Amino acid sequence: MALSKDRIGKNAILLLLSDDSSEHLAMLEQLNWKSCTGKVGSMDEHKVVAAIETAAKKNGIINPDVYRESHALYHAIIEALNGITRGQVQLGSVLRTVGLSFAVLRGNPYENEQEGDWIAVSLYGTIGAPVKGFEHETIGLGINHI
Amino acid sequence: MALSKDRIGKNAILLLLSDDSSEHLAMLEQLNWKSCTGKVGSMDEHKVVAAIETAAKKNGIINPDVYRESHALYHAIIEALNGITRGQVQLGSVLRTVGLSFAVLRGNPYENEQEGDWIAVSLYGTIGAPVKGFEHETIGLGINHI
Amino acid sequence: MALSKDRIGKNAILLLLSDDSSEHLAMLEQLNWKSCTGKVGSMDEHKVVAAIETAAKKNGIINPDVYRESHALYHAIIEALNGITRGQVQLGSVLRTVGLSFAVLRGNPYENEQEGDWIAVSLYGTIGAPVKGFEHETIGLGINHI
Amino acid sequence: MALSKDRIGKNAILLLLSDDSSEHLAMLEQLNWKSCTGKVGSMDEHKVVAAIETAAKKNGIINPDVYRESHALYHAIIEALNGITRGQVQLGSVLRTVGLSFAVLRGNPYENEQEGDWIAVSLYGTIGAPVKGFEHETIGLGINHI
Amino acid sequence: MALSKDRIGKNAILLLLSDDSSEHLAMLEQLNWKSCTGKVGSMDEHKVVAAIETAAKKNGIINPDVYRESHALYHAIIEALNGITRGQVQLGSVLRTVGLSFAVLRGNPYENEQEGDWIAVSLYGTIGAPVKGFEHETIGLGINHI
Amino acid sequence: MALSKDRIGKNAILLLLSDDSSEHLAMLEQLNWKSCTGKVGSMDEHKVVAAIETAAKKNGIINPDVYRESHALYHAIIEALNGITRGQVQLGSVLRTVGLSFAVLRGNPYENEQEGDWIAVSLYGTIGAPVKGFEHETIGLGINHI
Repeated sequence: MALSKDRIGKNAILLLLSDDSSEHLAMLEQLNWKSCTGKVGSMDEHKVVAAIETAAKKNGIINPDVYRESHALYHAIIEALNGITRGQVQLGSVLRTVGLSFAVLRGNPYENEQEGDWIAVSLYGTIGAPVKGFEHETIGLGINHI
Repeated sequence: MALSKDRIGKNAILLLLSDDSSEHLAMLEQLNWKSCTGKVGSMDEHKVVAAIETAAKKNGIINPDVYRESHALYHAIIEALNGITRGQVQLGSVLRTVGLSFAVLRGNPYENEQEGDWIAVSLYGTIGAPVKGFEHETIGLGINHI
Repeated sequence: MALSKDRIGKNAILLLLSDDSSEHLAMLEQLNWKSCTGKVGSMDEHKVVAAIETAAKKNGIINPDVYRESHALYHAIIEALNGITRGQVQLGSVLRTVGLSFAVLRGNPYENEQEGDWIAVSLYGTIGAPVKGFEHETIGLGINHI
Repeated sequence: MALSKDRIGKNAILLLLSDDSSEHLAMLEQLNWKSCTGKVGSMDEHKVVAAIETAAKKNGIINPDVYRESHALYHAIIEALNGITRGQVQLGSVLRTVGLSFAVLRGNPYENEQEGDWIAVSLYGTIGAPVKGFEHETIGLGINHI
Repeated sequence: MALSKDRIGKNAILLLLSDDSSEHLAMLEQLNWKSCTGKVGSMDEHKVVAAIETAAKKNGIINPDVYRESHALYHAIIEALNGITRGQVQLGSVLRTVGLSFAVLRGNPYENEQEGDWIAVSLYGTIGAPVKGFEHETIGLGINHI
Repeated sequence: MALSKDRIGKNAILLLLSDDSSEHLAMLEQLNWKSCTGKVGSMDEHKVVAAIETAAKKNGIINPDVYRESHALYHAIIEALNGITRGQVQLGSVLRTVGLSFAVLRGNPYENEQEGDWIAVSLYGTIGAPVKGFEHETIGLGINHI
């Protein structure tokens, strides 16, 4: 299942679902796209947001000194969380918890160079009661221009 | 990227992202899981719901004579649409349209046999303005016990 | 199950759940409270809103010439619809339909006379697929000062 | 106001609104339905969820060792909370509090035996400012297959 | 930019956007309308609600002993917060913070005297990451009969 | 009430609230900011979206051939509609209608040149029943990087 130059969202999800992402990472480098991945488990939504923002800044996906880049990332994260939570963007306050992998990708998936960079945030993992095994899978994807 | 017996959501998504799903379908058959896939493009949310329901019934994923099976499927579809729409479950009424592939999977991803069957609805495609190319990718996943 | 002078919401619901509401109506009259009931079935949310507004005006529950009374009733209806729809206030657009009884009550359920009149809108019936029998019960209650 | 074999939601609500529920409980036993009731007051949504889950497990309404039963109950609770909160499933975070009675019912309200068990969660009480008397009634009902 | 007797919402917003509101306050007094303004910065939604409620009571905009007045104000505040948060009424739980000015106005903006008093809550300021300068403007307006 | 170089949102709103916007437009031109205004009345949300998109393209606020510009504008519009609708982004489907003025502004309100252009969409007008005079004011503001 190869990555595609015109599918930033699909690429972001395959990074999470692959058993071995080294091939994907090599291809992303060739495309000159930036990417990072990480994991976060929490009952606090803000900790999920913070984990992704921190990883994206530390890995140079976004410029931490320019607000427009943080703004683009933030909205992509919240959109991805909508897919994870499916209704209200709440975890512990409605007694549920998540264990998630995340990926952040940056590149231009369009043919037109004027489209510039876009950012994709993908989330995959489990959501459920704070009881081991009482959980099911969940996925989310947010895409924004940057 | 092989399917996993304990990952009904991941399997449902890989069915959509694979260039060739024949290997996946063979494995699902071996697991004795039911599945179907299809495509739908629309500005009407209810047409997306109807397309998935019709495919699931026609392919024997759910028993069309038992309400509890339709009820389980319906909520899984709406949850998947939350990931697609990220905010309000509306398409044409807020001037946007989708082109989606969908998969419906049924099986028991848990070790405990008492968990019975679960259903996963995955959606992947594009969302955007009703103008060719003015769109980006979107994904959604809904999982329910059946 | 008698009505209570201090429970406008409970009274509004009992009007819908009683097999015979004549006793309840007699008691409401004694309290000097205004009330009406009706039925509406639709896939259009706006038809549910319109049916309740029309009944409330025709039966003198609200003064049709004063906007503040319509405003109070409208928000009580929308709040009741939140209980009916549990997520997005949408019916046909997400392929579901309702068959509802409704009641509108007006009176002061508080001891303090300064609290003035309040309005309660109760809804009870079924929600589900547009297929006979593929539906379950649903209830909603909205309360507002008027 | 007698219970009805085909109205699991109505029954769940009447359990809360009755001054004396002994007659209702006798009839439920005769129907071979399981039920429990309780009370919870809180500014934290998760405490409302936890109180209902604990009561349902302790009273044998659901099997605490099977996730599908917890999953069915959880979604019924959240749906009922939508009726209580009418907009965002938030209490203390938007400076309001609830005092609620709850009932959980389990049985098959359909004629077709294949429909199996369904679960209803009903909530009735008050919502308002954290000031005595500055509150009005609120109701919620969630129904799910189990 | 003068205030208008029939524009309670516009007036409430101009109070926030004016460099010098003394002229506006004089005109409001002449109209016999009540008003107050204040500031609040927080990551907790409930602190925003509380700051506005406290100011409105302390300045005699609403009668603190009558629930209907608190109820009217509360819903106007929550509606205004919808404009501020645009999606979920959450701040710190999704890792964002606000710095807001607020105004509360009370008067009858309609020609018909029977319309009685209405209340407007306006909010204007910034929303963003808890990092100085990483924020943009936001506005909200809630209007209710009282 | 003069416009401010660092307040794109405030400027967008003042354009709508001013009796005479010629002074504002002169100042915007001096700042080298782009702007347009217009009016739209409808029960259909998608007509509001379309009216603003059309005006922004026709007046050269956004480049109609680049998707990222349409994408930025679209999300700013939907965010502004959240302030207008305060709950669900629905008009006619919940039996209400709007009469709105709108403004679209484009410029860099930040000191750092790297922040590039931002877009603000402001909406001001009335929302209410489809009955003349049965309406109150409403406002919305959406801001996005472009």
